[in-house]
Amino acid sequence: MTRAPSPRQVGPSRPPFARWLGATNDVTRTFLAAGRVPGLINLAGGLPAPETYPAAELAEIAREAVLRRPADTLGYGPIEGLPELRDAVAARFGGPHLRLGRENVLITAGGMQGLDLLGKVLLDEGGLIAGQFPTYLGALDAWRPRRPTFRNLILEEVGFDPAAALHGAQFAYTVPNFSNPTGRLVGASMRQALVDAAHATGVWLVEDDPYGGLLYDGRPEPRMIELSARQGGGGPYDGPVVYMGTLSKAIAPGLRIGWVVAAPAMIEAMAMAKGGSDLCTSGIAQGVALGAIEGGLVERLQPRIVGLYRERRDALCAALDERLSDAFSFEKPVGGMFVWAVARDGRFDTDRLLPAALDAGVCVAPSSVFDASGKNRRALRLNFTLNPPDRLAEGVKRLATAVRASQPNPE
Amino acid sequence: MTRAPSPRQVGPSRPPFARWLGATNDVTRTFLAAGRVPGLINLAGGLPAPETYPAAELAEIAREAVLRRPADTLGYGPIEGLPELRDAVAARFGGPHLRLGRENVLITAGGMQGLDLLGKVLLDEGGLIAGQFPTYLGALDAWRPRRPTFRNLILEEVGFDPAAALHGAQFAYTVPNFSNPTGRLVGASMRQALVDAAHATGVWLVEDDPYGGLLYDGRPEPRMIELSARQGGGGPYDGPVVYMGTLSKAIAPGLRIGWVVAAPAMIEAMAMAKGGSDLCTSGIAQGVALGAIEGGLVERLQPRIVGLYRERRDALCAALDERLSDAFSFEKPVGGMFVWAVARDGRFDTDRLLPAALDAGVCVAPSSVFDASGKNRRALRLNFTLNPPDRLAEGVKRLATAVRASQPNPE
Repeated sequence: MTRAPSPRQVGPSRPPFARWLGATNDVTRTFLAAGRVPGLINLAGGLPAPETYPAAELAEIAREAVLRRPADTLGYGPIEGLPELRDAVAARFGGPHLRLGRENVLITAGGMQGLDLLGKVLLDEGGLIAGQFPTYLGALDAWRPRRPTFRNLILEEVGFDPAAALHGAQFAYTVPNFSNPTGRLVGASMRQALVDAAHATGVWLVEDDPYGGLLYDGRPEPRMIELSARQGGGGPYDGPVVYMGTLSKAIAPGLRIGWVVAAPAMIEAMAMAKGGSDLCTSGIAQGVALGAIEGGLVERLQPRIVGLYRERRDALCAALDERLSDAFSFEKPVGGMFVWAVARDGRFDTDRLLPAALDAGVCVAPSSVFDASGKNRRALRLNFTLNPPDRLAEGVKRLATAVRASQPNPE
Repeated sequence: MTRAPSPRQVGPSRPPFARWLGATNDVTRTFLAAGRVPGLINLAGGLPAPETYPAAELAEIAREAVLRRPADTLGYGPIEGLPELRDAVAARFGGPHLRLGRENVLITAGGMQGLDLLGKVLLDEGGLIAGQFPTYLGALDAWRPRRPTFRNLILEEVGFDPAAALHGAQFAYTVPNFSNPTGRLVGASMRQALVDAAHATGVWLVEDDPYGGLLYDGRPEPRMIELSARQGGGGPYDGPVVYMGTLSKAIAPGLRIGWVVAAPAMIEAMAMAKGGSDLCTSGIAQGVALGAIEGGLVERLQPRIVGLYRERRDALCAALDERLSDAFSFEKPVGGMFVWAVARDGRFDTDRLLPAALDAGVCVAPSSVFDASGKNRRALRLNFTLNPPDRLAEGVKRLATAVRASQPNPE
C-alpha cells in the first residue's frame, strides 16, 4: 500500500501542507496500484473491462479528429467545452419535458471533475452536504479539501423525510442508479420525493449517474432531472437537479470526458471554477468523444458491454453464494459494477480483512472508505466488471480463505 | 463581454454559491471569447500561433499511441501520470546537479492544473502567498476559491530583501522567464537570492516556466531549481523549488499536458489532490505527449516557433514605436509572448480604455486583471504571438485610435 503524505510539516523548516491533507486517505491509489501487482485479483476498484475498449476504432477517430478539427483539438477551446459536444450531450439527454440547450451543458475531465467543481462553487470551508451514504469514495476525495460536514440521507429508513433531510444543506448528493458502493437502485417514488424536496427547499440535488447505461435486468427508472423538468415552465431547464455523466463506462475512462447538465446559472458558476482548474478539457479527448458519439459508437458498444457485465455479475454472485453466503449477505444488483456484501456477524471488521485478503492474492474495498465517518466497517464492495468469470470465482475463493482467517473469535 | 455568475443567491430559494464566486472576474473568458469575434484583432490573450500546431504529425502520433498503448491511453492511468512520460520529463530537466527520478514528476492537465493543485495542498482558507505582481491572471483564478491573502514581491525595488519577503508565506510564486504579463526576465543574481531565501526560510518557491523555450535574444538564465539543487546532498532533488512547465507553448495547448518537478513529498501531496480533481490526466493526451517527446517533435518545432515569434515581437514593437510611444512606454522583451506598455500619464485608466478598444476592433488586457488588488490601472499587456505582422500593425493602429479617444482631460 502506498503511504499518505501525512506530515503537515514536510521538513524542519517548510510551511505545513493544508489541513485537509492530514485527514486524507489513499485508498483510491491503492486500488489503482492493485491493478499492477502481478497475480493479484482486483475486486476492489471500479474499473471497466479493458477488452471492451474499441482501440482500433478510437485510433482512427483520434487521427480524423486532429486532421479535421485542428483548431478544436490542438488550440485552447472554450472553458465550457466544444460547442458541438455540448450540443450532442444536450440532444442525448433532452426530451419532450426536459428542454436542454448548450447553455445547460458543461464538459468536464471525467465525472470526477464535475464533483470537484461542484465543491468549488457551492462549498465554503466546512459547508454541509446531505449525502446518500455509504457513497462514492471519489466524491469524498473531491470535497475533502473544503473540509465539509455531512448529513446522512438514509433513503430506506422508515419515516425518511426528504425535505427535512435536505434543509440547510449546500447540496444533496445521490447516485440513484446502482449506487456506488451498494449497487442499490433508487425507485421511482423516492426519486420523485427527492425532486419534490429539492423544489420545495431550493437545495441543489446532484444526480450522479456514471452507471445508468449498465442495466442488466428490467427497465430504467426515470432520471430525476426529467422529473424535475416536469415542474418547470417549458423553457430550457432551470431547476435544482444537477445531473452528471461520463463516457468512462460507455467508451473508455482514459478519455476523461464527462459532463454536467444543469441550470445555466450552475453551468456558468462551474465554468468559472473550471477556468481556474484546467482552462479547458483536452481538445484531443473532446474531439475523440465527439467523433465517437457522432459515429454511434456508444450505441454500438453498449449491448456488448451490458452482456459481458451481466455474465460477470452472475458469476460473482454464484461464487459468493457458493463460498461466502455463510459469512456475508448480499443482494444481486440489477445494474452497475458492484456487489455490496455485508458481514452477518456485526463484529466482523472488513478493514482488518483487507491485509489478509491481499496476502491471499485478492484486493477488495472495505466499507469504511465509503463513509465520511469511516465507522462502517462491516461490509465489502466487490467489483465484477474487470475480471472474467473464472477469475471472479478464483477471487472469491481466495477471499473466502481470508475471511476464515479473519473471523472474530466466537463469544 | 460575458457576465459573471455574480449572484451569491441564485434563485429566491437556492443555497448561495461559495463566497469566492462573488469576488471573481471573467476576463479570461472574455479573452477566449474575443478569439471568436469576426474581425476583432485579439492582442489580449496568451495564445500561440495556430499555424505552428503540427496537426498532420499529431494526428499520426495520436493514432499510433492508441493502437500501441491501448491500456495506457484508454484505461485509468496512475494519478501521477504515465511512468514513461514522467521519466521523459525527469530526463529532460535533470542534469549533473539536478538529479531527478520519476518520483520528482507529476503530469498535470496543462500548467493551470499545477497551480490549482498547489493551492489545494498548501493553502488553508485565507493563506498567505508571496507573489511577483503583476502576475499571471490564471494563477489568481486558480487560488481564488481558497481566498488567499497576498504579499507583493517587488524584485526590482531598491533594498528588496528576499528572506523577509518570503517569511511566513505558504509559498512564493514567480515566473522568472519573461513574466506574464510584464515580459520581464529575472536575472541570475536575483534567482540565486530567491533560492537562498527559500532554503533559509523553508518556504516553497514556485518557478512557473511556461515561456522558457521562447527566448529570442541572448542566452537562457539558469533555472532556480538547478540553483537549488547545487545546495542539495547529491540525491534525488528534495529542495524547496517547485518547477512547473507545459507543452502548451512548445507543441499545442489543446493537449492540456503540463508537469510539476519538485521534491517527492510535494509530488505525493499534489497527487493526492489530483486524485480528487480528475483521477488522472487524459490517457490519449498523455500518449500523444509521450509520442511527440520521444519522436523529437519539441526540438524540431522550436526553431520555427522562435523565429516566427521573434519576427512578430519586432513587428509589434515597431508599430508601438511608431504610433503609441507618445502615450505609452515599454521595453522590448527578450522572450515570451507579451509586451507590457505603461501609460506615460499616471492618470490614464486602461480599464476604461478596454471598451473603446473593443469598439475600435482590438482587444487588449488591462493591467488591473493581473493584480490581486485590481489597483494597477495604468498599463496594458499586448500579445504578439497570435497574429502575423500586418495584423499586429493594424491592431496597434486601432488601439492608437482608442487611446486618442480615452486620453484624460488635460489639467
